[in-house]
Amino acid sequence: MAKAWHLTSRPQGLPTMDNFALREATDAPLEKDQLRVRNLWLSVDPYMRGRMNDAKSYTASFQIDQPMTGGAIGEILESTMDGFAAGDLILHMGGWRDGGIIGLDMMPNKLPVDALAAGMPPQTFLHNMGLTGGTAWIGLLRIAAARPGDTVFVSAAAGAVGSAVVQIAKAREMTVIASAGGAEKCKWVEDLGADAVVDYKSGPVLPQLAAALERLGKPGIDVYFDNVGGEHLDAAFAVANNFARFAICGMIDVYNDAKPQEMKYLVRAIPARIRMEGFIYTDQFIDCMEEFYADMAGLIASGAVTMRETIHDGLESAPDAFLGLFAGRNIGKMLVRL
Amino acid sequence: MAKAWHLTSRPQGLPTMDNFALREATDAPLEKDQLRVRNLWLSVDPYMRGRMNDAKSYTASFQIDQPMTGGAIGEILESTMDGFAAGDLILHMGGWRDGGIIGLDMMPNKLPVDALAAGMPPQTFLHNMGLTGGTAWIGLLRIAAARPGDTVFVSAAAGAVGSAVVQIAKAREMTVIASAGGAEKCKWVEDLGADAVVDYKSGPVLPQLAAALERLGKPGIDVYFDNVGGEHLDAAFAVANNFARFAICGMIDVYNDAKPQEMKYLVRAIPARIRMEGFIYTDQFIDCMEEFYADMAGLIASGAVTMRETIHDGLESAPDAFLGLFAGRNIGKMLVRL
Repeated sequence: MAKAWHLTSRPQGLPTMDNFALREATDAPLEKDQLRVRNLWLSVDPYMRGRMNDAKSYTASFQIDQPMTGGAIGEILESTMDGFAAGDLILHMGGWRDGGIIGLDMMPNKLPVDALAAGMPPQTFLHNMGLTGGTAWIGLLRIAAARPGDTVFVSAAAGAVGSAVVQIAKAREMTVIASAGGAEKCKWVEDLGADAVVDYKSGPVLPQLAAALERLGKPGIDVYFDNVGGEHLDAAFAVANNFARFAICGMIDVYNDAKPQEMKYLVRAIPARIRMEGFIYTDQFIDCMEEFYADMAGLIASGAVTMRETIHDGLESAPDAFLGLFAGRNIGKMLVRL
Repeated sequence: MAKAWHLTSRPQGLPTMDNFALREATDAPLEKDQLRVRNLWLSVDPYMRGRMNDAKSYTASFQIDQPMTGGAIGEILESTMDGFAAGDLILHMGGWRDGGIIGLDMMPNKLPVDALAAGMPPQTFLHNMGLTGGTAWIGLLRIAAARPGDTVFVSAAAGAVGSAVVQIAKAREMTVIASAGGAEKCKWVEDLGADAVVDYKSGPVLPQLAAALERLGKPGIDVYFDNVGGEHLDAAFAVANNFARFAICGMIDVYNDAKPQEMKYLVRAIPARIRMEGFIYTDQFIDCMEEFYADMAGLIASGAVTMRETIHDGLESAPDAFLGLFAGRNIGKMLVRL
């Protein structure tokens, strides 16, 4: 019998194991347009924290005592859905479980057979060829309209989205200053090609960012790709060039924190004419998915874009993997392997 | 002999009279391309506070022991400049003085004779037909891309820019919630057509803004025109509809204040996909001046856009008029009449 993680109570601040319970999923013969699936990989992502609240947001709230959902790669065991057959690998939204019945509401998509045949690991569609890579590509190139020659600052650069931003920016001949926490992450981000690194755990962000700009001979940043908010965002306002563009992708610093963000340099939005824009992947994706897939597949094939994976094994480890995102325990993409 | 206000020291926080001195201006026979001018009206505007700092900004800093500059309406007494003759009324940047020698660097422009003949008071070119009206028009219609049917929130709505925003928005069939300080200003803003008023002096902004939306049957705001920053800006983030646009024109709350702005709702930029953009008039003006002048002249002629003026008399009163902006002592446009 398949099992699924249920949300049993709404977290106040940082979630704990008490908010979750692993329960048996309902099972039944398939109705029309359903798939029986065995999941191989589950994605855990910071945006899921928002779905644990009751507040109106861009995705529906998880319901109490219902299975949670999220990106997953599964193998079809049985199908009553046209175009899907037993043995197909699919990307779908029925994550947080080891398998079960998947309907059209879980948006199943077959993984492209040619990419798999060429040796692309299926879980790539949970990161560089999926949500996190697409978020990086859309935020950097569409929302922030970054161009070759721009100086780009990116926070949480050792995360799944941030590390893709670093590599896409370098492939497009931008100068990249990347922020990460701790020596190991910073070293990896440098290996990815970042021109300078800010270790936010070693001291305040702004002086390090200013020193990096000085070292690189750059007057300021043209683009900020924000994954964390708070101190990083304020530092970006402090050193923004005129007409800088900020793509606001995440604010992991504040998702679990009711304290206000203290913005000392927000006022520079006016003299520097800064444009700041929050975005989510699903709004933008339909318009540019063809271009994204073609471009990203090329960048991956050429080795310009790679990914490190932090892997937890077994369905039981899913909440721990999720909580690790907020403690910075991932390098690259956090995944659960079943 | 003409006199001019000089900046004698850089203010720390709120300027005081000690930062300024009234001194005789240099006088001389005119060289080529100069005008001798007698000023009739001087403009004082919040942006001038930024020019009193030494920091890099979008306009050059005022220099210590030099005359300050700013918008003014003057009458030409003598001219060596092609196309300008004694008796012409001009808009120019040689303000903060009762007259003197004006060169091309002070950007003299003749006021349109037909508008004056039709009865438009010349100082209108210091407000609705000039910097403040243009700032309102550009910020609302271009930067925030406000459309008929939108719900617009505007702060400092009893000021020169804000009151123009209220009226342009109403002329374009938008719903307007306007914030001002105190009963007299709120009453005036309602008389201008605002659908609801927030009196920020009577209590916190956010509950009043939320109550106004509820009363009007609107789920949130589509546009925020920010003149003040701080609490107002945070409240706007709190109640923004999806894809709201914020035009950031000024942050008078923080110009004199080194304290950080406490932003509790900035994080809503992501789920609500808010676009926030700082702008200044001079970047945008060339591209749209013809459309602006034609549109605004029509709105003024039809009575859709009016202006109240708070007038100080005499050059001696100029610093007091300027300081009054930060104490909220103006309703409508603050002017100095000579």
